[in-house]
Amino acid sequence: MPNTTFEKSEKRIEILSVSDLDFENFSGLLPVIAQEHGSGRILMLAYANLEAVRKTQETGYAHYWSRSRKTLWKKGATSGHVQQITEVLVDCDKDTLLYKVIQTGPACHTGAKSCFYRKLHFETIEN
Amino acid sequence: MPNTTFEKSEKRIEILSVSDLDFENFSGLLPVIAQEHGSGRILMLAYANLEAVRKTQETGYAHYWSRSRKTLWKKGATSGHVQQITEVLVDCDKDTLLYKVIQTGPACHTGAKSCFYRKLHFETIEN
Repeated sequence: MPNTTFEKSEKRIEILSVSDLDFENFSGLLPVIAQEHGSGRILMLAYANLEAVRKTQETGYAHYWSRSRKTLWKKGATSGHVQQITEVLVDCDKDTLLYKVIQTGPACHTGAKSCFYRKLHFETIEN
Repeated sequence: MPNTTFEKSEKRIEILSVSDLDFENFSGLLPVIAQEHGSGRILMLAYANLEAVRKTQETGYAHYWSRSRKTLWKKGATSGHVQQITEVLVDCDKDTLLYKVIQTGPACHTGAKSCFYRKLHFETIEN
């Protein structure tokens, strides 16, 4: 499919369709970074298969593939901590997605706002 | 190894060591999100094995595992577009890293500042 482009800020942004994505790595899964709209805070990383990306497009809410439960997963379906999509970006290799989202409640199953609440010990910084 | 904690803002942050990380998924590789210090912009996603994480700790510069070249890779070693680490965060499952970095030059091999310069077509937003 030919890509369309538009101007945003100073640079051209390509618009891709789902069929442009490269699902070859990791048995049909793409890593998906969820970033909070506005704050830029990184909330979590999960995985999406083709069906999850399509459901995300259709509904406007973040869907993923649960590797542990082996099922399509609407984020917040049981907890209510849904992620409303504001845009989906694709990387240069077309094998990673970035969901920009409006997060309801905490993103992490532990109750933390973000799943990234731990630091790696780092000699040059900690000492 | 017992974890140490300290107060940062209102919440406790656990400090992990490399031996706490879970390298079981994806044949010993962890996905690593690189986020620009200050702006919060997401620059790229790459992968790290144990050696890459250790080199990152030792040198203070982002190292990854190149899946295509099957080799340890210091980001910017040839281009000069290095990533100086300000902190490394770990997610709740201990299987994803977040490098916060000071990026020299563009992060993407295409010359773009960020690898996420494409958008996925999205009916509810584009139309």
